[in-house]
Amino acid sequence: MINIGIVGGTGYTGVELLRILATHPHAKITAITSRKEDGMAVAEMYPSLRGRIDIAFSSPDKAQLQDCDVVFFATPHGVAMAQTPELLKAGVKVIDLAADFRLKDVGQFEKWYGIPHTCPEILKEAVYGLPELNREEIKNANVIGNPGCYPTTMQLGFYPLLKAGIVDAGNLIADCKSGVSGAGRKAEIGILFSEASDSFKAYGVSGHRHTPETIAQLQRLTTDTVDVLFTPHLVPMIRGMHSTLYARLTKNFSNEELQALFEAAYKDEPFVDVLPFGSHPETRSTRASNMLRLALHRPNNGNTVVVLVVQDNLVKGASGQAVQCMNLMFGLEETTGLMHVPVLP
Amino acid sequence: MINIGIVGGTGYTGVELLRILATHPHAKITAITSRKEDGMAVAEMYPSLRGRIDIAFSSPDKAQLQDCDVVFFATPHGVAMAQTPELLKAGVKVIDLAADFRLKDVGQFEKWYGIPHTCPEILKEAVYGLPELNREEIKNANVIGNPGCYPTTMQLGFYPLLKAGIVDAGNLIADCKSGVSGAGRKAEIGILFSEASDSFKAYGVSGHRHTPETIAQLQRLTTDTVDVLFTPHLVPMIRGMHSTLYARLTKNFSNEELQALFEAAYKDEPFVDVLPFGSHPETRSTRASNMLRLALHRPNNGNTVVVLVVQDNLVKGASGQAVQCMNLMFGLEETTGLMHVPVLP
Amino acid sequence: MINIGIVGGTGYTGVELLRILATHPHAKITAITSRKEDGMAVAEMYPSLRGRIDIAFSSPDKAQLQDCDVVFFATPHGVAMAQTPELLKAGVKVIDLAADFRLKDVGQFEKWYGIPHTCPEILKEAVYGLPELNREEIKNANVIGNPGCYPTTMQLGFYPLLKAGIVDAGNLIADCKSGVSGAGRKAEIGILFSEASDSFKAYGVSGHRHTPETIAQLQRLTTDTVDVLFTPHLVPMIRGMHSTLYARLTKNFSNEELQALFEAAYKDEPFVDVLPFGSHPETRSTRASNMLRLALHRPNNGNTVVVLVVQDNLVKGASGQAVQCMNLMFGLEETTGLMHVPVLP
Amino acid sequence: MINIGIVGGTGYTGVELLRILATHPHAKITAITSRKEDGMAVAEMYPSLRGRIDIAFSSPDKAQLQDCDVVFFATPHGVAMAQTPELLKAGVKVIDLAADFRLKDVGQFEKWYGIPHTCPEILKEAVYGLPELNREEIKNANVIGNPGCYPTTMQLGFYPLLKAGIVDAGNLIADCKSGVSGAGRKAEIGILFSEASDSFKAYGVSGHRHTPETIAQLQRLTTDTVDVLFTPHLVPMIRGMHSTLYARLTKNFSNEELQALFEAAYKDEPFVDVLPFGSHPETRSTRASNMLRLALHRPNNGNTVVVLVVQDNLVKGASGQAVQCMNLMFGLEETTGLMHVPVLP
Repeated sequence: MINIGIVGGTGYTGVELLRILATHPHAKITAITSRKEDGMAVAEMYPSLRGRIDIAFSSPDKAQLQDCDVVFFATPHGVAMAQTPELLKAGVKVIDLAADFRLKDVGQFEKWYGIPHTCPEILKEAVYGLPELNREEIKNANVIGNPGCYPTTMQLGFYPLLKAGIVDAGNLIADCKSGVSGAGRKAEIGILFSEASDSFKAYGVSGHRHTPETIAQLQRLTTDTVDVLFTPHLVPMIRGMHSTLYARLTKNFSNEELQALFEAAYKDEPFVDVLPFGSHPETRSTRASNMLRLALHRPNNGNTVVVLVVQDNLVKGASGQAVQCMNLMFGLEETTGLMHVPVLP
Repeated sequence: MINIGIVGGTGYTGVELLRILATHPHAKITAITSRKEDGMAVAEMYPSLRGRIDIAFSSPDKAQLQDCDVVFFATPHGVAMAQTPELLKAGVKVIDLAADFRLKDVGQFEKWYGIPHTCPEILKEAVYGLPELNREEIKNANVIGNPGCYPTTMQLGFYPLLKAGIVDAGNLIADCKSGVSGAGRKAEIGILFSEASDSFKAYGVSGHRHTPETIAQLQRLTTDTVDVLFTPHLVPMIRGMHSTLYARLTKNFSNEELQALFEAAYKDEPFVDVLPFGSHPETRSTRASNMLRLALHRPNNGNTVVVLVVQDNLVKGASGQAVQCMNLMFGLEETTGLMHVPVLP
Repeated sequence: MINIGIVGGTGYTGVELLRILATHPHAKITAITSRKEDGMAVAEMYPSLRGRIDIAFSSPDKAQLQDCDVVFFATPHGVAMAQTPELLKAGVKVIDLAADFRLKDVGQFEKWYGIPHTCPEILKEAVYGLPELNREEIKNANVIGNPGCYPTTMQLGFYPLLKAGIVDAGNLIADCKSGVSGAGRKAEIGILFSEASDSFKAYGVSGHRHTPETIAQLQRLTTDTVDVLFTPHLVPMIRGMHSTLYARLTKNFSNEELQALFEAAYKDEPFVDVLPFGSHPETRSTRASNMLRLALHRPNNGNTVVVLVVQDNLVKGASGQAVQCMNLMFGLEETTGLMHVPVLP
Repeated sequence: MINIGIVGGTGYTGVELLRILATHPHAKITAITSRKEDGMAVAEMYPSLRGRIDIAFSSPDKAQLQDCDVVFFATPHGVAMAQTPELLKAGVKVIDLAADFRLKDVGQFEKWYGIPHTCPEILKEAVYGLPELNREEIKNANVIGNPGCYPTTMQLGFYPLLKAGIVDAGNLIADCKSGVSGAGRKAEIGILFSEASDSFKAYGVSGHRHTPETIAQLQRLTTDTVDVLFTPHLVPMIRGMHSTLYARLTKNFSNEELQALFEAAYKDEPFVDVLPFGSHPETRSTRASNMLRLALHRPNNGNTVVVLVVQDNLVKGASGQAVQCMNLMFGLEETTGLMHVPVLP
């Protein structure tokens, strides 16, 4: 069994980790920290876990995190980097679901997140946790920067096109839509039911933190200069993310060739599903599962390829992907504990 | 492996059966019928099942249902009773998710469902599939009438009170609320998104088919005459059912004694969870799982007991319960394939 | 023109007052207070009011409330009673949308609201603002305690039955369901979109503040002792309230007589609509309007009458009712500015 | 008073016309046709209209449409063109909310709508009913082709940019999102509550009927060749439309100049609201009103302008715009009966 610690188990990525790990055959959760809820049973806060998760939250000072095999940080940005050096010394692996280890460029990190990076030397060895593009590195990693939810869809959607060098890398557009759980479990007016339901809006259009992460990763795939115009929107649904990606073809490529390109790229991937050309994937077809599905379009047979990508932002976009990384890091079958069938309707 | 046939796999209880059986370790789905979708891959209609369910719908005449070990009917009322006699002769067990085998009284059936019952002799040996109240009979059954979703909550909520003989059996009130999926996957105006969302209403208040089923079953628990005033409502959510049950105490019973009564009644039940006295269970705490949760209240310390009961109407209220019955009928551990952790948020 | 001040214009009842008063032909909003948003244009917080409400929030000390003809308090409990004595001295009328002037019994107020009442002498002259039952008193009132949203539905639903003396007044049950906006615009976890959508729950079942208010008012209608078992629930919709009321008949009364009783009771009421017997009103049929609709049922022709009542909790259940009171207090036609057609779909 | 006939009053644009016209001071609804509902009171189908709309549906043959001053067609494509010739002969003006009179090019119409156009001669004199771009023609029109909902947002969002000639007209992208009411009130599986809620998807990505309409209208504004890549999506909300428009600048233009350009373009428009630069309009800020709001962005200060446009698809996107046209056609103040304050929350 893998002894697992979770820092910050009260948010949505935290409770989703608990849901997944509760039925993972090799996982043993030994510590969940929460300063505020010290002593409260996890199942008291989340009755959905009654009978399935028996431990209580403990304050960070009491939790024996150094005895774990791996610690997940489901915390705000900045928490993981404060505790990681000590954990690594104790031989504990770290998977951070926040942004502390996503951006290799410290200057970029500090610009977009507004806090100094406190362990740049660890940042150097940290591995970006997107298994489809980074599998071998993840297997040997001690520290994982788990990808942002939006960047996961943008990277897996643009990857085959950039790799093949057939689109204008400097003029990519990603019009993305997320369910409200992506904003976290925070007491904020803007994500109240009466504010966010039965309405739709964009946010962060002038600039969003997931842009530099996405560009940095996509740049690794091509020598052309990558630029992505990323526009996030808030959808009145709990889970689910839909990215509508636009890329201009620079080479002659038929629809059949495009489809073949994507199918070849992902044919061995257990969690990427390429739908038939011209399909319209729905976010609910991935709900509560680790699947990401995508489909290609060529509107009016013009020279723009549209890639539609859907995932559950809390699973493939966060906690499921983190467990997928854990499986790789501990030599388990990559799909272990992650084969939930999507919940539909 | 149990060879399984499903008649009517295109509705919500059908696709929910598929979701559950896809990860059931002893289930092998060998036939799914749909006259209209003959030849269409199941995963084409339900992309959530891509890579998980590989067979196609076949028309009823082509499906080799008589070679199955068990056939589930996820069909409108009346279909199961037409095909059950032949299946039984072929040694196939039948689990009907509709109402054909729920009411022992043929007259009642014909009054409420408006069609003649075509196999009253089978009705006699059919077993009502509520494991918590009927476990031993289910184990030996060849034909199961799977309970209605509302009746499941009403029976499990009122049962300990009636069994103990401490409430006025003739004056029970059940104010029940269901998610829209309970109405099925039918092209009807009233359950369109733009009709049913952001609104709330009651329906069938003057009389509903689940009343006679509930009364008949509850009557088995007591010699007092049972009467239930049942009021169903439609909630703008997909899954979930919440029943608010009112019963007047006829004996002196403290809150502690009431709580103890319920805890004793369900202490060995894997799918009934008695919450602490005074809790307010949310439907989402059971979402996509086979759990039913309930909690007791005594408003203003008066002589009315209020029981709050929640479940997922498609799982414990339908397909999960049917699989629970199947497990019992085939000598499997009752919880096999049914231990999904509720999806929250 | 009536010069109007609003204290606490940032909550949902506040912005709803603004929406209504923006097109009221005799209303002139001269002051809106908010300590926190002092100087911010109202339309900046609520872009829906751009071009319709031109003033800015001002801190309470700057607002010239004593120059108003009437001041609405759309504030938490306790604010109105602190400011009302001074306003009355200045000749300003007061309409409180919170509970400060709803309960005549100071002890009850202090028990349920947990704060001392600071102006019991004003409480004595305050008038309960339910026009259908209290019209004449409202016309001459200087201080209005605007009814709670739930109590409005319970009173108008039970009134004809109690008045006629044909039901068991001591055994009334009110199973009520409210949209989430009823919880106000507060940064609280429980009413986040990801917590409250796609789910359903009861709350406050063991005892709720609207019970004493409702009983006190209903008691004025009959010499029998009134008791109401009131169970509130939270519905995943923004606006709307549905109360399912149960009363046991103590006299022989046909369905036709019941219907006639209600039609007679409300035949001259512009905002109470009695639907045909056996109807199922939807909350959306009152959305964004001041209408309350109700319908009668007699399930299975038994001796329980079920009254289904719907309204928009923010209009007839709060701000619309407050403006209705204002119209009466200033000698205007009662329906002035309140004839919005419900928004459907 | 204007005597008004409505053909097809049972759909969402029909009931929205009724909601608006019920409080329009110069409107008198004299006939509403529905073959299927002949004789049924309008308020029986739509209880929200009880007491506000007193007439009943009548079958087309009984309705005296030729006695009306104007007839609205809230019908499927093809109905208006069948009846318009006769109405025009009788001196009745026609406003079609479907597509019969939107496309001047008969070939385009027949290609995209799959039916022959039966009155091309009337098509020639028909006027496209977008008042902001076509006001004078509308005043003198006898036949109006009311714009599609999506095209309204695309035209008003791109108009100032194309008029000024500062963007690449051949590479416009419109990523648009609509509430479910846009799909109409039809008994179809795909728009059931349990299918469309808590999920998000694109549709018609390979080609959609609103593309040729939009391009044809935008082409009138510039000599450059216009091309728009239009991608519609379905949002789990009832009303509301959000278009995210992308245009590449071909000239040096500061953000201040862009903002000034839009403010100048719409400074006298009662129903177009230009928000401050960098705002994120929400669809709910226009709910149930005839307002369209837009805001400009310049992501990462690059050379792409993003225009965010919101409206209520049933009002400015359909029935409200139609009434706006009617006001112009009959010499009334353009805003008559259309000054509803948006309903928020």
